[in-house]
Amino acid sequence: MIDKSLLRALLLSLAPAIAAAQTNPAAQAARTWRQQHERAIVDELVALLGIPNIARDRDNILRNADAISALIERRGLAPKLVSVPGGNPIVFGEIKTPGATRTLVFYAHYDGQPLDPREWKSPPFDPVLRTGPVEAGGTIVPLPAPGSRFDPEWRIYARSAADDKAPIVALLAAFDAIRAAGVAMKSNIKFVFEGEEEATSINLERTLAANKALFAGDLWLMCDGPVHQTRRQLIAFGARGFTGIDITVYGPRADAHSGHYGNWAPNPALTLARLLVSMKDDKGRVLVDHFYDGIDPLTATEQRAIAAAPDVDATLMKELWLGSTDNAPRKLADVINEPSLNIRGLASGHVGNEASNVIPASATATLDIRLVKGMAPRLTQTRVIDHIRKQGFFVVDREPTKEERLAHGKIAKVTVRPGSYEAVRTPMDLPIAQEVIRVVESARGPAILVPAMGGGLPLDSVERPLGTRTIVIPMANHDDNQHGPDENLRIQNLWDGIELFAALLTM
Amino acid sequence: MIDKSLLRALLLSLAPAIAAAQTNPAAQAARTWRQQHERAIVDELVALLGIPNIARDRDNILRNADAISALIERRGLAPKLVSVPGGNPIVFGEIKTPGATRTLVFYAHYDGQPLDPREWKSPPFDPVLRTGPVEAGGTIVPLPAPGSRFDPEWRIYARSAADDKAPIVALLAAFDAIRAAGVAMKSNIKFVFEGEEEATSINLERTLAANKALFAGDLWLMCDGPVHQTRRQLIAFGARGFTGIDITVYGPRADAHSGHYGNWAPNPALTLARLLVSMKDDKGRVLVDHFYDGIDPLTATEQRAIAAAPDVDATLMKELWLGSTDNAPRKLADVINEPSLNIRGLASGHVGNEASNVIPASATATLDIRLVKGMAPRLTQTRVIDHIRKQGFFVVDREPTKEERLAHGKIAKVTVRPGSYEAVRTPMDLPIAQEVIRVVESARGPAILVPAMGGGLPLDSVERPLGTRTIVIPMANHDDNQHGPDENLRIQNLWDGIELFAALLTM
Repeated sequence: MIDKSLLRALLLSLAPAIAAAQTNPAAQAARTWRQQHERAIVDELVALLGIPNIARDRDNILRNADAISALIERRGLAPKLVSVPGGNPIVFGEIKTPGATRTLVFYAHYDGQPLDPREWKSPPFDPVLRTGPVEAGGTIVPLPAPGSRFDPEWRIYARSAADDKAPIVALLAAFDAIRAAGVAMKSNIKFVFEGEEEATSINLERTLAANKALFAGDLWLMCDGPVHQTRRQLIAFGARGFTGIDITVYGPRADAHSGHYGNWAPNPALTLARLLVSMKDDKGRVLVDHFYDGIDPLTATEQRAIAAAPDVDATLMKELWLGSTDNAPRKLADVINEPSLNIRGLASGHVGNEASNVIPASATATLDIRLVKGMAPRLTQTRVIDHIRKQGFFVVDREPTKEERLAHGKIAKVTVRPGSYEAVRTPMDLPIAQEVIRVVESARGPAILVPAMGGGLPLDSVERPLGTRTIVIPMANHDDNQHGPDENLRIQNLWDGIELFAALLTM
Repeated sequence: MIDKSLLRALLLSLAPAIAAAQTNPAAQAARTWRQQHERAIVDELVALLGIPNIARDRDNILRNADAISALIERRGLAPKLVSVPGGNPIVFGEIKTPGATRTLVFYAHYDGQPLDPREWKSPPFDPVLRTGPVEAGGTIVPLPAPGSRFDPEWRIYARSAADDKAPIVALLAAFDAIRAAGVAMKSNIKFVFEGEEEATSINLERTLAANKALFAGDLWLMCDGPVHQTRRQLIAFGARGFTGIDITVYGPRADAHSGHYGNWAPNPALTLARLLVSMKDDKGRVLVDHFYDGIDPLTATEQRAIAAAPDVDATLMKELWLGSTDNAPRKLADVINEPSLNIRGLASGHVGNEASNVIPASATATLDIRLVKGMAPRLTQTRVIDHIRKQGFFVVDREPTKEERLAHGKIAKVTVRPGSYEAVRTPMDLPIAQEVIRVVESARGPAILVPAMGGGLPLDSVERPLGTRTIVIPMANHDDNQHGPDENLRIQNLWDGIELFAALLTM
């Protein structure tokens, strides 16, 4: 059951946004259009969600790119597939506005996070509509017949329902609405839909650098991520950076009998645990030497924005079933502006009924590190590796040899995962930033402004080659199980997104 | 490549055993018989290994029991299947010797450790013969034609090749040899082949208690485990006890995005790591309060036996690719007589390419604790649970509720795995113990005597209901990958086992 006081708080917070939409003519047109085409809009999304979209699944990635090209073509815009060798294609579309003096680029991505289908309540690429969050007992219902309306609290469940196919469909629906209503456009518009964001956008920068004129724009609006936990619109003027590291430590050559060798052969799971514990104190502070060195301080405007953000901690703890938080008593809105070091997963031997009486041969952890402005990915990686050495490990970047294992009591294979982002923060005081705030608020009511999203986005891969600015405009619900099993999009967020993008497309 | 100095050391250590076999007439008869029947003996083993034997796979367990019954029946002995409701059957066979005044019970088990077939080089239930250890490049060869001989360094690869189907086949082959040669037997013999030893013999004690007369014996010889790392025969006068514990700690209700919540939502993998690290110091000493309390000290005879054991540490470190050991500089033969706490496995989220950008919802560790005489399983479990509480955890023994998770910053589900053993040590000075040593040495040369095997065996489940004594007589190679992938039996160990058991069957 969803908590009632939480629901009440959320509904109250929605009210101003709904009322405010009336002041922007494009957003008004979008609402009217949407109310007449709900089923058709959802059908486009559902069809797209039915195509598996893990970045390394090339065949299906190309099917996605083709399907999105077809959606663009259906609007009379000539789509392009742009890629570098080995990369997944970017789907590109363009609206040329006569007399326009600037170009806005709307970015989204069509690939999704890797997954294990056994962890999902319904198959991840077989989208279903539910009456509410599955955790609150939401049950599967058929899509309403064309012409009839969706309950706005219903949710579509599928990988990438929220992250990040919904913005693609919402942008195109917003364009349909603007055109149908005859609302004038002022800027040239480009659509850039990437196919390997969840694989850390490894080819994005090279692709943009190789096609600078095609991708040039005065501002990139990054349509990704969730709105605020209160459900109010959020604008993020940047994002934390990212780097990923895999660490494997070693025990006996092969799993060894824990009876015959327990107490004598070192257990790699414990060795790994000790290493991980050495990296953070029990408040959540990272203990890697120099980890926080060189960080750009927040400006006064940014600090004010953080202080003005609603305090959602207590509500969110209830929602996530948390009895404590790291870095308490500091708030989420505050600590999210600092770098983090997170364990994505641990694996060693087997657990529960699958466990054997062994000392496992190895233990692996995958870490992700969120960077803030002033932290270079490579330097941070080096600092983590230095930390591992300081704990007494001999560090290699490939499987250690027998000789190395015999020569070193503690040995770790440390590999940096492909693709890292630098953090980006666009100054909130720039005229174009101020204009974006005004336009968004005219469609969605008072927005929450954050200096940077917690989640990583390849903003540096856009800004570096193109010399442009980026602002993040999310539309998904915060409780969308993004990146995990049972990812979902709340229908009202889809409707809100269409109004939001209609306003931005006409700015 | 196998290390040459190691090979030399091993061959030297084998020499006295081979020479000594000539002094025992039954062992002599067994050698002659075996040399004439190598292929037939291996065929019986291979057929048995072809039947999957995980204890919870009831259909296949019954197929194993039937196959072993058929082997016993083929020897003209009337087999019995004995079980309690819900338990896997014990296969029982009996040889009544006219005029015998004592009964020797030979125990082995036909079930095997759980496994993941993807980790095996060849399918675990499709036995293959290899020219040597697979890790040293041993390649698959066909079985020699009937009448031709096996290279004694070849190995049979399959689950339970070593642990513990080989002793079943070796015992029956030894009986064939004795009977064919007309060597007189002096004792009544019983065969007890259990079907759930690897599931911690959960029904053994109840089954024996319900059939005391059937299972009564003056001594149980437990035919399980590996011989010494030098390949010399080993006799263990007991075994460490065992108890298993699963621990799960919790993060957010469902996997949460590590960008949006990293630094704020606690990471259960780190929480688990911290808990595990609190349990042991970096030398391998267990830090759980009172863990070592109440332990029975070793007798002078036992201490002498430990001191007399060959020092294999350096050789074994090379073989297991270990650059350090726990509790160094103390030796394996010494520390194996102390209790241990081992992590069998860790699981949280996913690692490597399967990892998602999440803070995992939970993290689980499975522990096994090896007990020594004087440690009660239940009291040890309580001490571990007390330790977890002392680290600030609210402890439950089932999934915690939402309310419990909200009320407690740190919460752990701790469950004791079914089946625990108490440790057992039979005094080495008992007349029957001294007689076993003499007989074993007459077949296999100077033996290595250890107060207790490191591995668990259900000795307490035998001694308690029947009031008998137990001695462990292993035959498998120490490097048999017991309990792990690529379990194997070295052919010479099978041949040695037949001679060993022929001697013991005629004592």
